[in-house]
Amino acid sequence: MPLPTIAVTTGDPAGIGPEVALRAVSEVTEWCEPLLIGNRAACEQVAERLRIPFPDVPFWNLGEFQRPVEPGRVEATYGRASFDYVCAAIDKTLAGEVTAMVTGPIQKEAWHAASIPFPGHTELLAERTGASDVRMMLTAETISCILATVHVGYADVPALLTVGAILKSIRMAHETISKIRGREARVTVCGLNPHAGEHGLFGNGEEERIILPAIQQAAREGIAVTGPLPPDTAFTIGNRRQTDVYVCMYHDQGLIPLKTLAFDDAVNVTLGLPIVRTSVDHGTAMDIAWQGIASHHSMVEAIRLAVQLQRL
Amino acid sequence: MPLPTIAVTTGDPAGIGPEVALRAVSEVTEWCEPLLIGNRAACEQVAERLRIPFPDVPFWNLGEFQRPVEPGRVEATYGRASFDYVCAAIDKTLAGEVTAMVTGPIQKEAWHAASIPFPGHTELLAERTGASDVRMMLTAETISCILATVHVGYADVPALLTVGAILKSIRMAHETISKIRGREARVTVCGLNPHAGEHGLFGNGEEERIILPAIQQAAREGIAVTGPLPPDTAFTIGNRRQTDVYVCMYHDQGLIPLKTLAFDDAVNVTLGLPIVRTSVDHGTAMDIAWQGIASHHSMVEAIRLAVQLQRL
Repeated sequence: MPLPTIAVTTGDPAGIGPEVALRAVSEVTEWCEPLLIGNRAACEQVAERLRIPFPDVPFWNLGEFQRPVEPGRVEATYGRASFDYVCAAIDKTLAGEVTAMVTGPIQKEAWHAASIPFPGHTELLAERTGASDVRMMLTAETISCILATVHVGYADVPALLTVGAILKSIRMAHETISKIRGREARVTVCGLNPHAGEHGLFGNGEEERIILPAIQQAAREGIAVTGPLPPDTAFTIGNRRQTDVYVCMYHDQGLIPLKTLAFDDAVNVTLGLPIVRTSVDHGTAMDIAWQGIASHHSMVEAIRLAVQLQRL
Repeated sequence: MPLPTIAVTTGDPAGIGPEVALRAVSEVTEWCEPLLIGNRAACEQVAERLRIPFPDVPFWNLGEFQRPVEPGRVEATYGRASFDYVCAAIDKTLAGEVTAMVTGPIQKEAWHAASIPFPGHTELLAERTGASDVRMMLTAETISCILATVHVGYADVPALLTVGAILKSIRMAHETISKIRGREARVTVCGLNPHAGEHGLFGNGEEERIILPAIQQAAREGIAVTGPLPPDTAFTIGNRRQTDVYVCMYHDQGLIPLKTLAFDDAVNVTLGLPIVRTSVDHGTAMDIAWQGIASHHSMVEAIRLAVQLQRL
């Protein structure tokens, strides 16, 4: 049986993306055929500086830079380039040229500087694959979280929470984690307010009006789901033992406990797409780019999960 | 030198407060003289059921119940009783009859049912001691967090964040943790929005308008302070090593990582009061009340910290 082909974008050339991608692909060739997507000259520059042997895998070379890439620099040119790598990966995965795609970290400000009308990968993936409703899920050995809202300001969250949005999050989390674990996943849903509103003492009744009806419907559909739990105690060791995946109302509600517990191990996966896409859970780490100290563990795990998900 | 006297309230009689207080006070008599405050008959009921030897320490007996207390029950009578215990402890500490006070967990809904016009301990303490501006800080071996806002709905947080409120949080956190650690505390301030707003991409510029000016003023005052950090990466192991105390914008931003890392070890301390007051960091845990399985570790740590703080 041929190995699955996995497109791996190298991310913003001035960040840690190239070095983690170069190191990771060499370690995964027993279970997949990686296809690196990026600028070959920039990656060779990184490999040479860090004395990383250039990996013996196919490379899809895109664009060119007028000057050698400067590590740590936020630049529109780099933003545009990393955008192009993701577009190529999406198109190749949609066309079936590769089995799944894994993305390296992009610099959101560089995308913004390049006038790219997407705040991040997830929104671009939704638009370019024609997906109407996608979710970001972060998964690690110790904890997995799906986010009902993602890259919006703190104050914008309550208006975006609907029964439908939360119900869909529960369903997607349950489906994917059940497949990964090979058994029925237990879903825990967090409240929005401190103490989950303490029965109406805090907040605007979001728990009773919006979160609870979604949980009740999911339970009627046969999903093992509990909540809304007080967010501060939802992630204690006792509750983690009874939870396979958390449904979180906003970005930091899920990502604070996840990165507190599993900074280097987590993988980002986009649910609701017609293709399989995973990603590292870290950013470009401009301050340590091209120094050879970035861990490529999350990238290896992202590739491993992409291989696993394409089989399910 | 005489040992400091520490008032210990037993909290809601139907919760785990009585059992953790009874167990804890027996373990701390080498470094303080505890004074238990609560209903003696109810505590004897608990001690008998759980076969805890009744501690040989002074007991300030308050009120009486018409019927034996029912564990796990939320009742106005119990709310009123636990409120009275806290009031007695405050008055005794203010009057200098005891050196400091430590509180067991109360049931906020029972207070509400008893028409007590305070959402929790902190607000009562501020009112009854005449303190104008107090803060809740949670501290454990691995992580300490001070909260700029506490028991308010998610949506109410942004309007409560001011430069002054955050500056005062930084100063209080710095002062207290420096005293506890015996060296200059390093303060890390979290942003409000995902990615701390990513330079204006998300949110309403709270980081630039409100949080940064407070940090800059604190730095001018000589405090070792950094931020605003993206909330999701602020609590990674790398950042924790460079932080003695976090200033958090809202309840769950601080309490999620704290309870994820140190559920049983954390102590709650109220800053800005004219008296020393600490508390357990857990609730009444009605579901396991009077079963003898609640850990009294947080209560012991709360008493230890009260003893330490009254000496500073």
